[in-house]
Amino acid sequence: MKRIDSVKNEHIKKWKKLKTRKGRETTGRFLVEGYHLVEEASKAKLVEYVLMTEEATPTSTLQSEDVILVTDQIMKELSETETPQGIAAVCVLPKEPEVERLEGQYLLIDRVQDPGNVGTMIRTADAAGLTGVILGEGSVDVFNSKVIRASQGSLFHLPVIKGNLEEWVGKLKNAMIPVFGTALKEASSYSALEPQAQFALIVGNEGEGVSQTLLEMADQNVYIPIHGQAESLNVAVATGILLYYFKG
Amino acid sequence: MKRIDSVKNEHIKKWKKLKTRKGRETTGRFLVEGYHLVEEASKAKLVEYVLMTEEATPTSTLQSEDVILVTDQIMKELSETETPQGIAAVCVLPKEPEVERLEGQYLLIDRVQDPGNVGTMIRTADAAGLTGVILGEGSVDVFNSKVIRASQGSLFHLPVIKGNLEEWVGKLKNAMIPVFGTALKEASSYSALEPQAQFALIVGNEGEGVSQTLLEMADQNVYIPIHGQAESLNVAVATGILLYYFKG
Repeated sequence: MKRIDSVKNEHIKKWKKLKTRKGRETTGRFLVEGYHLVEEASKAKLVEYVLMTEEATPTSTLQSEDVILVTDQIMKELSETETPQGIAAVCVLPKEPEVERLEGQYLLIDRVQDPGNVGTMIRTADAAGLTGVILGEGSVDVFNSKVIRASQGSLFHLPVIKGNLEEWVGKLKNAMIPVFGTALKEASSYSALEPQAQFALIVGNEGEGVSQTLLEMADQNVYIPIHGQAESLNVAVATGILLYYFKG
Repeated sequence: MKRIDSVKNEHIKKWKKLKTRKGRETTGRFLVEGYHLVEEASKAKLVEYVLMTEEATPTSTLQSEDVILVTDQIMKELSETETPQGIAAVCVLPKEPEVERLEGQYLLIDRVQDPGNVGTMIRTADAAGLTGVILGEGSVDVFNSKVIRASQGSLFHLPVIKGNLEEWVGKLKNAMIPVFGTALKEASSYSALEPQAQFALIVGNEGEGVSQTLLEMADQNVYIPIHGQAESLNVAVATGILLYYFKG
């Protein structure tokens, strides 16, 4: 088994840069941590190297992977969690999936900043059985370690496409898929609608919501009634309520 | 205006202890940070002192409060956020609300550990207009600063009662309020049920779900179907889907 002992090793220095978006984009690589996510990345055939400390146990899923033994100190430097599980993987960024024929059910994410929210929304879209997620410009990067963790591996289960949402809304409308924005004003209560066989739902930034341009492009805008004194719902919770309602 | 300049001041030393559950429970005080939460605590008449740095501007809501000017260094030591807003308040723990007549709609939280999840669930219960939240033993403390932040002040809007959930399920059933557990096995899809005028919904720990004892006590257990490859939904998202469905 290969082995790296020094935090100053050139590979380790290079891999530490994968913690930043720039580092990921220039090298075409990203990092995942922990047994569950390393296994999910392996199933998705994205793993280049599995990194393990002495204490970690390779699981059967990972037998065919290229394993490198590293020190606790190296794992700590690569990790973004407080108590690393002793296993991580350097992965190849997946190719953007090409959508040949646009049909099905999509979640469009407009400038959502919090990685926990974006990860949870991808997990929710996966659970709801959506066709894909379109992550608009100005949202947090999907290969950010916190997004990956909150997604619990769901980003390996369905296409997550980075794109310009205005272009995507145009394409979806051309494909006769009804596009729903989420708004507080000039909108219908979601429960006035019927479940939808095909749909695209746009959810937006934690403070500002969906952009005015996108709301104007949508076929219809919907809101979730607030019965109590809260000003709004968390965006991932709102996404769950709407996706499961539309699924029927 | 009163003023404290030293981080070694006895009050500051005492207030720093409010970051821990033990410190809050022994002194009967808790801390909130940021304009929005300080105002919410003030409206709920829980503020003992407002602490502000030179740069912070007192808002009109806070005019009647006892304000103490503190240094940036003191604010940083009391704060649990990376970029403190320069305003915080020392608050008195509210009395546990007494429930004289049990009626309405309740969320019961069984051993949920993540403060972001518990805070988001309280916010969601508020938005859904529930009567109250019962936080079971073994859940994260509701006056943990991350819970307060994620709740966005909703914990000041509806009763959040700490209690033994088995006792509460007994009381709710005696009051003829139907109790629903959430489970993966031996449960009905939630969408097979009708919206409910009165209900108690039990949601549980991120990894283990609701305890077996509580599931056995519930009138009926429900699950949310997973259509894709995700193993489960985030507990706060699941709570939102179920509460809004039950509200109808």
